[in-house]
Amino acid sequence: MAKEKKLVESITSMNEDFAQWYTDVVKKAELVEYSNVKGCMIIRPDGYAIWENIQKELDRRFKETGVENVYMPMFIPESLLQKEKDHVEGFAPEVAWVTQGGLETLQERLCVRPTSETLFCDFYARIIQSHRDLPKLYNQWCSVVRWEKTTRPFLRSAEFLWQEGHTAHATAEEAEERTIQMLNIYADFCEEILAIPVVKGKKTDKEKFAGAHSTYTIEALMHDGKALQSGTSHNFGDGFARAFDIQYSDKENQLQYVHQTSWGLSTRIIGALIMVHGDDSGLKLPPRIAPVQAMVIPISQRKEGVMEKAAELCETLKAAGIRAKLDGSDKSPGWKFSEQEMRGIPIRVEIGPKDMEQGQAVIVRRDTREKVVVSLDELGEKALEILEAIQNDMLARAKEHLETHTYEAGTYDEFKEIVAEKPGFVKMMWCGDEACELKIKEDTTATSRCMPFRQESLGDVCPVCGKPAKKLVYWGKAY
Amino acid sequence: MAKEKKLVESITSMNEDFAQWYTDVVKKAELVEYSNVKGCMIIRPDGYAIWENIQKELDRRFKETGVENVYMPMFIPESLLQKEKDHVEGFAPEVAWVTQGGLETLQERLCVRPTSETLFCDFYARIIQSHRDLPKLYNQWCSVVRWEKTTRPFLRSAEFLWQEGHTAHATAEEAEERTIQMLNIYADFCEEILAIPVVKGKKTDKEKFAGAHSTYTIEALMHDGKALQSGTSHNFGDGFARAFDIQYSDKENQLQYVHQTSWGLSTRIIGALIMVHGDDSGLKLPPRIAPVQAMVIPISQRKEGVMEKAAELCETLKAAGIRAKLDGSDKSPGWKFSEQEMRGIPIRVEIGPKDMEQGQAVIVRRDTREKVVVSLDELGEKALEILEAIQNDMLARAKEHLETHTYEAGTYDEFKEIVAEKPGFVKMMWCGDEACELKIKEDTTATSRCMPFRQESLGDVCPVCGKPAKKLVYWGKAY
Repeated sequence: MAKEKKLVESITSMNEDFAQWYTDVVKKAELVEYSNVKGCMIIRPDGYAIWENIQKELDRRFKETGVENVYMPMFIPESLLQKEKDHVEGFAPEVAWVTQGGLETLQERLCVRPTSETLFCDFYARIIQSHRDLPKLYNQWCSVVRWEKTTRPFLRSAEFLWQEGHTAHATAEEAEERTIQMLNIYADFCEEILAIPVVKGKKTDKEKFAGAHSTYTIEALMHDGKALQSGTSHNFGDGFARAFDIQYSDKENQLQYVHQTSWGLSTRIIGALIMVHGDDSGLKLPPRIAPVQAMVIPISQRKEGVMEKAAELCETLKAAGIRAKLDGSDKSPGWKFSEQEMRGIPIRVEIGPKDMEQGQAVIVRRDTREKVVVSLDELGEKALEILEAIQNDMLARAKEHLETHTYEAGTYDEFKEIVAEKPGFVKMMWCGDEACELKIKEDTTATSRCMPFRQESLGDVCPVCGKPAKKLVYWGKAY
Repeated sequence: MAKEKKLVESITSMNEDFAQWYTDVVKKAELVEYSNVKGCMIIRPDGYAIWENIQKELDRRFKETGVENVYMPMFIPESLLQKEKDHVEGFAPEVAWVTQGGLETLQERLCVRPTSETLFCDFYARIIQSHRDLPKLYNQWCSVVRWEKTTRPFLRSAEFLWQEGHTAHATAEEAEERTIQMLNIYADFCEEILAIPVVKGKKTDKEKFAGAHSTYTIEALMHDGKALQSGTSHNFGDGFARAFDIQYSDKENQLQYVHQTSWGLSTRIIGALIMVHGDDSGLKLPPRIAPVQAMVIPISQRKEGVMEKAAELCETLKAAGIRAKLDGSDKSPGWKFSEQEMRGIPIRVEIGPKDMEQGQAVIVRRDTREKVVVSLDELGEKALEILEAIQNDMLARAKEHLETHTYEAGTYDEFKEIVAEKPGFVKMMWCGDEACELKIKEDTTATSRCMPFRQESLGDVCPVCGKPAKKLVYWGKAY
């Protein structure tokens, strides 16, 4: 048993030190390896396979709404980045600059894209002339670079993978509609596929994207009660269009500026997946996103017929549409169990000589560790049922965690007490002044997460300043 | 008719100026748009959709052989790039250097990856300890940067998209086997999906990859008789393993160096697709790679029931598994025909009031312009047959072009005459000396494309120097 224990013992308990637990899990579950490049991570096969499934699911949803994929250059000339004032102020301090190409010093520095609004604007200015050219609904899957000083795998790294959608519309209404539509796609995807419930809302002016008219966000709550901004959707109005001169002639032949949006979701969401569902044995992946959904593990595999039977069961599972694998290595079953748990594979199927005699196998759920004895002739069917149950139960548990860790504060003292003692979201009214927002951050380190779409009234005044309340805000400490 | 003509007239004839024809096609077919970033292109939806299909097909084939996808950082610290001597010499003159991060000057320059051997080696040195860790069969889809001075869309650009596979093996034999296996996957993919026949062979030492032990290549012949290197597969032996100290303990507990390979195919192949199949009306896409396989075009679309019928036919085609679209815009049919031809969509389906009366539609092949009248109740079935025929015929025509443009030279004078007058491949014996290779290049601008796997004997001596011949070589002018 010494070997089995080692794999598990090497993880810090999440209640003891959540940050260390996270670091241990991403490393031990082999999602990520550190690299020689400061702040950049290597995404290993198990991590990348999760990203591929995320891509597949989102890409399909995007395309169903008419979105098309493109690819833009990774470099942005400094003069182009500077065209929209707020945008460059937001990003210039955190970009990487290319100053030499081959053996020559460049006449103009190029930044490695931190995001591609400026490139898309330049592109749209070239290809949009008439109302017939609208809307443009483009997206790209790529990597971006933001020169962060403190980095953590998936959560904050100098380079990360994401998709960035950029659209151009004839009217302000259409742009606003698209902004909300994409936010809803993110929210539905998180709930349905990742089993992560989110709070949908609008960012305050202080927290909105550099250059945006308004920014919408989905906020998820991690196991430790901290918030994670999990996807954002921005409405730019015609601000970028004016800076980049993107005009179209309408049906009356009048020149009009386009209205634009952008929306992005990144590998950061894998951090959420880990921190919402994981436990002290490692990852716990919801079946719909898990690259491997079922691991077949033979018991006493040297006994006659066991390996053959295990391989047969694996095929049965695959035939039922399950992403199944067989662990036929020469490790002990206990070691294999620990590995399957660490990797978060939703179910394992144990099959040994005794099971074979009785025409059965044992399915063990990763989420509850519940064991279900299943007759071999209904293995595929039962496994599918159990996977479905896991998906639903994981979402239900995450929802319950979100609900039980969302608090209400009627006074500012109450607010400070909750933030200090109860990790989670705190709902409180707000007057709309940035001064109060800054004071809260200074006093408590909590920030405004969003003004939720589902507004409630918890009183008429802002508890911080006493002025009339304008909005209910979700506050919280965030990653 | 003025409008219809405009779209077509704006393309230069391929026989008049092939390079200009190419540039016109990539632009008019909306595969690419130029950007403000020198040497970098924007890949538009129609271009990117081709790349997505290429990815889908290749990725599936890779994974069937056990390959897993990962993602490596896009930056390489200068010291890491320098670890393998030949490699850095090959790449250092053509990389982009990041020297500033945020507001700080970096202590060590980072190059934007031109290829990722050094990163994979560093990674492998970290994760490979035992023979149980082998083989490692990793691949990544990403963009790379090579600071080219003269650029052309797809063919040569400062940034391009590709996949790069990197594997580590216990033995030299296994590495060689993998190198050839991946070359065969490229060759089969080109023939089966892109309808591009290729010559498989080994590069001469002069032409091999920087740091490779041996490089294998697939070479395709463009319509203008120039060669295009379309995919390469490298065997590194244990050269990189020694430079990066990648060792594993074998079954006898002895430390051994791993043997490595790498193999890549890029968006360059889209250039081949254009230049092998296109004509003066634009692109011609083989059905298996075409993002849209059939365009339904209504005739007299304002007549009652025509649009509805066209939409119905589009659904019929989709139900048969065909990627079909309906052009319901208010352009004239002739304009729509030109667009469909320019975009290389393999078939169009014309349906008008007269066809409806007779319960038929007209299928027009893009490759031959042949019109086939089809009864509506067998539309799906017939369309599938025609698409299959187009795929086969396009490959047959490309094969014929390759065969009729492959020449044999017995003497050096003959060789020079062929190179000067007949664009294509020239087969000639070679002594193996780089001096003769250099002389040929200097005299004729033709380069050695490969030493084909299918060796033949055209004589005993090297026609250039008269020394004994070692190999038959394919020579040609290349992109």
